Amino acid sequence: MRFFTNKFLLYFLTLFAVLPSFLSTCYGQSQAKNPPNFVIIFADDLGYGDLGIYGHPTIKTPNLDKMAMEGQKWTNFYVGASVCTPSRAALLTGRLPVRSGMCSDKNRVLFPNSLHGLPESEVTLAEQLKKADYATAAIGKWHLGDKPQYLPTNNGFDYYFGIPYSNDMDKITDKKYWDFADDIQASYFNVPLMRNTEIVERPAEQHSITKRYTEEAISFIKKHKDRPFFVYLAHNLPHIPLFASKDFEGKSKRGLYGDVVAEIDHGVGQIIAELKADGLDKNTIVVFTSDNGPWLSYKTHGGSAGLLRAGKGTTWEGGMREPCIFWSPDKIKPAIVEDLGTTMDLFTTFSNMAGVPVPKDRVIDGQDLSGTLFYQEQSPRKAVFYYRGTTLYAMRLGDYKAHFITEGAYGMFGRKEMHDLPLLFNVDQDPSEQYDIGEDHPEIIRQINAAIKLHRSKLVKGKDQLADRE
Amino acid sequence: MRFFTNKFLLYFLTLFAVLPSFLSTCYGQSQAKNPPNFVIIFADDLGYGDLGIYGHPTIKTPNLDKMAMEGQKWTNFYVGASVCTPSRAALLTGRLPVRSGMCSDKNRVLFPNSLHGLPESEVTLAEQLKKADYATAAIGKWHLGDKPQYLPTNNGFDYYFGIPYSNDMDKITDKKYWDFADDIQASYFNVPLMRNTEIVERPAEQHSITKRYTEEAISFIKKHKDRPFFVYLAHNLPHIPLFASKDFEGKSKRGLYGDVVAEIDHGVGQIIAELKADGLDKNTIVVFTSDNGPWLSYKTHGGSAGLLRAGKGTTWEGGMREPCIFWSPDKIKPAIVEDLGTTMDLFTTFSNMAGVPVPKDRVIDGQDLSGTLFYQEQSPRKAVFYYRGTTLYAMRLGDYKAHFITEGAYGMFGRKEMHDLPLLFNVDQDPSEQYDIGEDHPEIIRQINAAIKLHRSKLVKGKDQLADRE
Repeated sequence: MRFFTNKFLLYFLTLFAVLPSFLSTCYGQSQAKNPPNFVIIFADDLGYGDLGIYGHPTIKTPNLDKMAMEGQKWTNFYVGASVCTPSRAALLTGRLPVRSGMCSDKNRVLFPNSLHGLPESEVTLAEQLKKADYATAAIGKWHLGDKPQYLPTNNGFDYYFGIPYSNDMDKITDKKYWDFADDIQASYFNVPLMRNTEIVERPAEQHSITKRYTEEAISFIKKHKDRPFFVYLAHNLPHIPLFASKDFEGKSKRGLYGDVVAEIDHGVGQIIAELKADGLDKNTIVVFTSDNGPWLSYKTHGGSAGLLRAGKGTTWEGGMREPCIFWSPDKIKPAIVEDLGTTMDLFTTFSNMAGVPVPKDRVIDGQDLSGTLFYQEQSPRKAVFYYRGTTLYAMRLGDYKAHFITEGAYGMFGRKEMHDLPLLFNVDQDPSEQYDIGEDHPEIIRQINAAIKLHRSKLVKGKDQLADRE
Repeated sequence: MRFFTNKFLLYFLTLFAVLPSFLSTCYGQSQAKNPPNFVIIFADDLGYGDLGIYGHPTIKTPNLDKMAMEGQKWTNFYVGASVCTPSRAALLTGRLPVRSGMCSDKNRVLFPNSLHGLPESEVTLAEQLKKADYATAAIGKWHLGDKPQYLPTNNGFDYYFGIPYSNDMDKITDKKYWDFADDIQASYFNVPLMRNTEIVERPAEQHSITKRYTEEAISFIKKHKDRPFFVYLAHNLPHIPLFASKDFEGKSKRGLYGDVVAEIDHGVGQIIAELKADGLDKNTIVVFTSDNGPWLSYKTHGGSAGLLRAGKGTTWEGGMREPCIFWSPDKIKPAIVEDLGTTMDLFTTFSNMAGVPVPKDRVIDGQDLSGTLFYQEQSPRKAVFYYRGTTLYAMRLGDYKAHFITEGAYGMFGRKEMHDLPLLFNVDQDPSEQYDIGEDHPEIIRQINAAIKLHRSKLVKGKDQLADRE
């Protein structure tokens, strides 16, 4: 067991207090000379254990495996929330959703009849990169508001093509999801497919959706190869209902879920091939990750968190730790990185790489991972906050994670429990969160409590954007 | 869901009936011209999820990861039993332990006061390879009998260096294992270290044991580089009690267990470097696997089965499915292999490669995997039998596994349950064995029952060799 010394604790606390302003001083005072292109490939409900290189026995992901071997495979990488809307808000704003109001105790996510979306006052990564004249595209699932003012084209993206929310919404059947995962039809859902602000297809033809998203990403890259670009490719799958194209359906031993992941993997390979063909691989950073853990209640239609505990909707590791692969053959040093990172760090890291200062008028939770990516330095991130709705359930500080509240996914797999003495796990030694060591380490719990106190002292909760529905 | 047709079933049944004699007709009529060297590296109690390339977040195994990328990573590879002695007997004889008497309903494994060991009538892989004039060495844990007549040098090995049983035996403290995993001392155990038939150190110095085993293997390879050789390197670790040398202790974020696995991995890298340095890599086949799943009751001193259910001592996947990597850069086609294989197949595959016929006077369970290894053909293996002691608890046939009896490890984690309607899992689609589909697929259960009937019709149980103790 390793312990934090008081000196170490002070270092952390100072870090929390000064980091945002420090970073904006260090970097980003002027635009970068040859700023890299960014491609973020974001899967939906893919679990920690669902790629070959992360240990799945029967899901084949040769392109992602290769990307991980040539780049960096992060094994302690987190999302900002264990469900869709807040997780996406965190990635695109670099901020915990509790600050932007993009999480709620009333609705888990946005629905087609939700009235609001990402507040205009929030600054997205796309808006950041526009300041450095990037061409920007959002392709795929949006889920930060489908009313016109909330769409990607009003949030820094030059171009949008995709389904504006989850592929299981606009349900036009009265069957319950839980009943029909094995016999699901595309026609049960009336989800729209949009280009920019127009609906171009309804219901969206979902068997071809992964393939079409990949093609759109490649087409955008080809069109903008002479200037810096940012492609945010957020696949709607493998969220249920699952659909694969003819080339993939029925091929995986893992069943339809494996087919779907294989098709996403194939698309990753095509994007990398396109970058290489146009000589863009040397100055493009590709990241692959997912929005939250697997939706376990759908059985074999949901994914696997591997050795991690629980899945989507929970603040156990399986809900919020995700595969994350960074690839850029000339820039990123191949490694397996055990340090901490989060999707929010993409905001800060990529802003800095583009030479655009991060906003100074608000708390930015993102930290700059470029030292780790380029020079294998230690990641600056030492802490992860696990919110459920607007409530902090758990915190990780260094190797240790304290759970103050635990709860199963959406009322399944375990009721809500408050822990007067928090559950404490060394998640590096005990990634499955099996062996509570809280009683033995009051000093670590004190440190975590101190860090939370500091966190709360600076926290202004944003107005709930998810609560109001038609 | 895929189903077996009746025709398919007949094919399987025929295969079971004729395979042993068929194989010995096809292959092995004469000695091979340039037979390859074999190095089997066998870990102890390492789980399915304990290597980087099999998904562990904080155990670093760069050498095994590289070996897997350059060779074949098998993801449905099984051992012959979920505990030590019978699993080792299976590997070395190519036979289910129930045939050789090397499993028992009285004692799980052999102990220092056991009277017997591997019967002389059994033919080991080393004895096979001696027929083709291989130099043969067993280095590390034996556990098939420590009385003189049962030692490696009486079982086809020219040379032996190691601890003849588990490293937690000869206990000279009255503390219970479960109490002291965190404060374990080498001096609690009086295990002998042997060279050939002599004890050369007692208690064995265990901090250096992994390093010394690796050195012994390299030294043997160097001495015998001009003739075919077979090294069976069976590490005593990461079985509890855990020990690492100074270079590794305290280095892994996974704690001591991670240190130990990292040291084994380092040794793998050294062996591969030696093979390359002497130009032996082109004609040597290296295999890495483990004897059974992780010993979960030891908490962080035990390993992880990753996404598989349960661990050591059980017939759940976590007890008997293991990492398995085959490496031979000029011979083995790099691939991730989802087909079935077992440690017993090493007996048959390597015998055939050496041009030595497998014994015809008994049932050999091993099947020849060389078509898969060299040409990526389908593995001939379609079935796995899961015995606990001398009782068949479960069987896998193709994608499906039926559990007739389930039970937790050594009375822990769940009592013994008989299933009139067996639990049925599609383990390719549901590797965590969560979703019983027995009620929906009586036809598959019928097929499995038919295959078991055939298996039993040819089964002669060997006399229990583990029962008698001083």
